[in-house]
Amino acid sequence: MNDKSSVLRETDNEARRQARILLRSARHAALAVLDPETGFPAVSRVLTGTDIDGVPVMLVSGLSAHTKALSKDPRASALFGEPGKGDPLAHPRLSIQCRAERVDRDGPFHARIRTRFLARHPKAKLYADFPDFCFFRLVPIAASLNGGFGKAYVLPGEDLMILSAANEILARDADVLVRELVARHPDLVSALVTASGGAKGGDWRIYGLDMAGIDLIWGDRTLRWEFDPPLGELNDANSYISKIAYSIP
Amino acid sequence: MNDKSSVLRETDNEARRQARILLRSARHAALAVLDPETGFPAVSRVLTGTDIDGVPVMLVSGLSAHTKALSKDPRASALFGEPGKGDPLAHPRLSIQCRAERVDRDGPFHARIRTRFLARHPKAKLYADFPDFCFFRLVPIAASLNGGFGKAYVLPGEDLMILSAANEILARDADVLVRELVARHPDLVSALVTASGGAKGGDWRIYGLDMAGIDLIWGDRTLRWEFDPPLGELNDANSYISKIAYSIP
Repeated sequence: MNDKSSVLRETDNEARRQARILLRSARHAALAVLDPETGFPAVSRVLTGTDIDGVPVMLVSGLSAHTKALSKDPRASALFGEPGKGDPLAHPRLSIQCRAERVDRDGPFHARIRTRFLARHPKAKLYADFPDFCFFRLVPIAASLNGGFGKAYVLPGEDLMILSAANEILARDADVLVRELVARHPDLVSALVTASGGAKGGDWRIYGLDMAGIDLIWGDRTLRWEFDPPLGELNDANSYISKIAYSIP
Repeated sequence: MNDKSSVLRETDNEARRQARILLRSARHAALAVLDPETGFPAVSRVLTGTDIDGVPVMLVSGLSAHTKALSKDPRASALFGEPGKGDPLAHPRLSIQCRAERVDRDGPFHARIRTRFLARHPKAKLYADFPDFCFFRLVPIAASLNGGFGKAYVLPGEDLMILSAANEILARDADVLVRELVARHPDLVSALVTASGGAKGGDWRIYGLDMAGIDLIWGDRTLRWEFDPPLGELNDANSYISKIAYSIP
């Protein structure tokens, strides 16, 4: 008997979509690590973004307690999703258990992670290149979505990842593709903001593109538009743009 | 050599005051526990309040993963303080490491904890008495205050507690005292809201009183007024009220 059966719902596509949006639109998370001296969990706030494969990333100081803890034990957990007005538990949130992998500054992922992260957090340019700062990938192993009272779901980590052979090409070409996309479809941003339920009239712009969706930003507000279904394998910029435009409402 | 010396500031009274206000005005926290199956930390959102001695409390379902984890290992951590507009890391937050103690429904603390908690979370009346719900005291062992960039402090757990022989009497008499206090000092609430930097014009009211301060609420907004210094030993209601009134700006 699984004693969770009484409170857990069967995970469906809508739950997966909500979990992905919570994670991919987040600008910060509560990160829990294991204190190497006491064995206690230790939770603190970190700035977050995502890598091109959907893996959440964070930028942290090497002097911080969480960074030191992760160098001893990479097991971590992160909570995404902010409460708004009213009951804090009525707002959806996502907890992941993850393995923290330090991103080597000379390795193959650093440049794309840095570019994507600074598009989400422009002020982090002031310190992202300090020698004691570093990025971590928080590779999800399992996740728990709480969509509000009585709406609990569990998800495997891979449900939060974007597994596509086109990731590398897209990471390289995303800026150019976004510019072409917006030039060809001038109403795209306002259509996405409306479809995502974002605040109207803002100076929204697209700042991120991956195989599963589009990231939008206006000051400190973010929105995530998930493609349904995700883009498949893609061969050239024209096919990207027409597929993306086709997937927009 | 303590390698934290380069980032930590010396903890002063203003840091202690900020830490107490963050904890005592919170309506929710990110709670990290140890997953009994995997050993990973696991972080989720919980509703919080405080006991009369300043110890943070939470109300949780016995069916939830965090409650099951705490029944195996009481080591926990909680993050208080919400980010507002702008950079999430510019806003102060408090992390505590704590030992979670389940509150026995038939024990001496349950009634006062329930009363104080439901004053902060009136909607929790709908489920607080369900048989599978229970309160935990999160007894602080150590704390870390991050008051914004470059403002990090560590505090011992007792800095967050209210150690007074008058706690029990005050817990019993608080409602009556608050009514008398407001009747004798009709401008008290607006003076406290102004002095605490709260939003003007709201329907604020006092909902909690302890030896270290006053809790105010207006819908889902809360404020904490800390006495400076805390009330000393008190013998009767009149001496409470005159001491409290004296400590208000």
